[in-house]
Amino acid sequence: MSKLSNLVEENDLGEWRRTHYSSEITPSLENVDVLIMGWVSSVRDHGNMQFVILTDRSGSSQIVAKKGECSEHLYGQLQHLKQHSSIAIRGVVKPQKKAPNGAEIMPSGLKVFSMAKKPAPFEMQGSTNVGIDTRLDLRALDLRRDHLQNIFQIRHTILQGIREFLVKQNFTEVDTPKMIATSTEGGAALFPIFFYDREAFLAQSPQLYKEQLTMAFENVFEIGPIFRAEPSRTNKHLSEAISIDVEKAFVDYNDMMSLLEEMIGYIITLIKKKNRDALEYLEFPLPSISSFQKYPYTEVVEILQEKGERIKWGEDLTSLALKNLQPDKSSSFYFITDWPSSIKPFYVRNSIKSENICESFDLMYGTLELSSGSTRINRKHELLERMKKQGLNIGSFDYHLRVFDYGVPPHAGFGIGLERLLMAITKTDNIRDATLYPRDIDRLTP
Amino acid sequence: MSKLSNLVEENDLGEWRRTHYSSEITPSLENVDVLIMGWVSSVRDHGNMQFVILTDRSGSSQIVAKKGECSEHLYGQLQHLKQHSSIAIRGVVKPQKKAPNGAEIMPSGLKVFSMAKKPAPFEMQGSTNVGIDTRLDLRALDLRRDHLQNIFQIRHTILQGIREFLVKQNFTEVDTPKMIATSTEGGAALFPIFFYDREAFLAQSPQLYKEQLTMAFENVFEIGPIFRAEPSRTNKHLSEAISIDVEKAFVDYNDMMSLLEEMIGYIITLIKKKNRDALEYLEFPLPSISSFQKYPYTEVVEILQEKGERIKWGEDLTSLALKNLQPDKSSSFYFITDWPSSIKPFYVRNSIKSENICESFDLMYGTLELSSGSTRINRKHELLERMKKQGLNIGSFDYHLRVFDYGVPPHAGFGIGLERLLMAITKTDNIRDATLYPRDIDRLTP
Repeated sequence: MSKLSNLVEENDLGEWRRTHYSSEITPSLENVDVLIMGWVSSVRDHGNMQFVILTDRSGSSQIVAKKGECSEHLYGQLQHLKQHSSIAIRGVVKPQKKAPNGAEIMPSGLKVFSMAKKPAPFEMQGSTNVGIDTRLDLRALDLRRDHLQNIFQIRHTILQGIREFLVKQNFTEVDTPKMIATSTEGGAALFPIFFYDREAFLAQSPQLYKEQLTMAFENVFEIGPIFRAEPSRTNKHLSEAISIDVEKAFVDYNDMMSLLEEMIGYIITLIKKKNRDALEYLEFPLPSISSFQKYPYTEVVEILQEKGERIKWGEDLTSLALKNLQPDKSSSFYFITDWPSSIKPFYVRNSIKSENICESFDLMYGTLELSSGSTRINRKHELLERMKKQGLNIGSFDYHLRVFDYGVPPHAGFGIGLERLLMAITKTDNIRDATLYPRDIDRLTP
Repeated sequence: MSKLSNLVEENDLGEWRRTHYSSEITPSLENVDVLIMGWVSSVRDHGNMQFVILTDRSGSSQIVAKKGECSEHLYGQLQHLKQHSSIAIRGVVKPQKKAPNGAEIMPSGLKVFSMAKKPAPFEMQGSTNVGIDTRLDLRALDLRRDHLQNIFQIRHTILQGIREFLVKQNFTEVDTPKMIATSTEGGAALFPIFFYDREAFLAQSPQLYKEQLTMAFENVFEIGPIFRAEPSRTNKHLSEAISIDVEKAFVDYNDMMSLLEEMIGYIITLIKKKNRDALEYLEFPLPSISSFQKYPYTEVVEILQEKGERIKWGEDLTSLALKNLQPDKSSSFYFITDWPSSIKPFYVRNSIKSENICESFDLMYGTLELSSGSTRINRKHELLERMKKQGLNIGSFDYHLRVFDYGVPPHAGFGIGLERLLMAITKTDNIRDATLYPRDIDRLTP
């Protein structure tokens, strides 16, 4: 019987269950029998010794088999293991200073659940030179890479932190429909759907729903997908993204800027506490959470004009132009406030000081726009006026407008893109690596 | 100047901010100046006294103005308030046994942010006789009703409880794409989309993605929308619903049944703790959380046949047939296990005991199916075999199948419908009242 034939895949877990995660294999378990499960991240043959590194969601453990000490059958099995195979190892823990967590396992049994059939087209440790498309085509495997594991651990903490923070602040979690009859903001690019016998669209934001819900729940938030048919190929746009939408009754845009600032501070503090290892691995300093500066739009335009940018008041600010704003802003959060009414959506309230300006803000991180927020219009006749000015089809907003006959409270809110926030916090350049399975004009799979 | 003309809507919050929620207005605040905000839930004129009830997300407060004690201007304003208007009241707290929370407010100032223009077409307290479509057409207003407020408070707790429970159990929160290239389970009804120049579909479940992700994160969960183009008009189907999807590596369907049972116990305990008022209002006993019974499918068919149901082994179980299962099961959770392989999807693993049966379960509540789960196939050749048997187009699953070359671990999981779970827990008959803005074949608005 060849050694290779020893290595049989076992379909069944049987009575085998994990006793420890690999991060728990420490010298304190000396001589304890353990059973760990995960994937093979490396196999090394050192003549009379076989080293196997098993990786699971918590980290890695070293398995060491010595010829003579380990059964010949098992030794042969370990020799033929392939990277990425899914296995379980039974064995005894021994202290070993050079091993992960200071301990290693002397194996007594092995189950191979699923053997890797091919070598992976990219390395698991460190950075990889292959193009992003090679990685995305095998995304689930790509996500085993240390770098991405750390990014997505931080993503998990961000989600937890946001919910914890908002629930403490008396917000109710809501979900609003993704299949809608009308565009939210007029012009923006929508994906059309066949909804039974009718045309419908995918929601590009929960905007109108979350505003309505302030009349019943006052403070609401939603964390869910949004869909934008923007045919762009940049490193900061996705066709499908996760939006964190927050809306609050009886406050204005200044209150919401404070809330957003506090929320980001809360998240960063939580990451420092929960993701120490990931932060160490990624080797970047977290953004400072001192209070965010506020620059009125008009002031920004003046600064940019002084620096030679050809920008006119009333135009949107491109990231190219914003590069000139202030070099030291490249790694910090700041607000641009009080935008021209003409370039913000119909539901944004005009400033009391001037009709040309509205109570709005963008949260920036360097040149990256993370969030947009504003005081909203809460009275029907003002909404109607703005909608007419923007040339919207009022009839198609009937289901929204009719609730304004029943006392919609003053309210304000913001939406913040989860992927962009994760990019800012983890210094990730390409938004595709801040999402598990990106969607863009060129990619609909896997 | 008529009294009516006193009542001017004020666009601006100015310096007015809430000092207390109405639930905080108690005798302990005697003689304290407070500022509360919310909507007018009733106005009563008692000759020389005006009673206004203001409701906010926490409950209600009573405002009492006495002629002579209150300024004539303010008294006139209060007289002309309309139900549902959005207002702020400033005043002094006085103990009052008959008032909510044992205290009332003697008003000194009022701001009307938004006046109600019409009377609501349904009552806010108790049950309402109008048809559900009248309510859904004005859903945001409908959601102010006590009954729905209580339902959605419990929904909020369920979401919190599930995440708390799963995070404690080492699950990572994920989000998977809703725009997909291929159907997950073959036959089921999909909504088609135009994805730029291609046809795509809305995901009917995160099934294949969550399975893939077990190879990188082991334990994952997603709470997000799913889309099913089922042209049904029943009280338990929606075209868009929230699915709680859970997937775990290195376990089988028995482990997942235990996890699901424990998760529901955790939720119900949390609701008891956090939603005492809602439970009292809704006047129902929470389901018992003693351990859930397990009935193998074959046994269920035999019981039903004995009771005269015309059902054959291999057929799906209708809720009509299940009514005959056991009358005492009408208000409890139970599992139906070990279903015929032929009526479960291709990714469900066959039983070791018999090829005709698979390692699967449905979680039932009375006749309502809440959840489906199973041990999944983790090896490519078995998947291919099952896909061929079910007549699926293997080429269109290429992006899924290719990751099975790299050691997919044994795994099992389940999906549970949030709306149906909420129906079971709150004894809600119509699934449309367990979701904020329902979508079905007849409804795409609001």
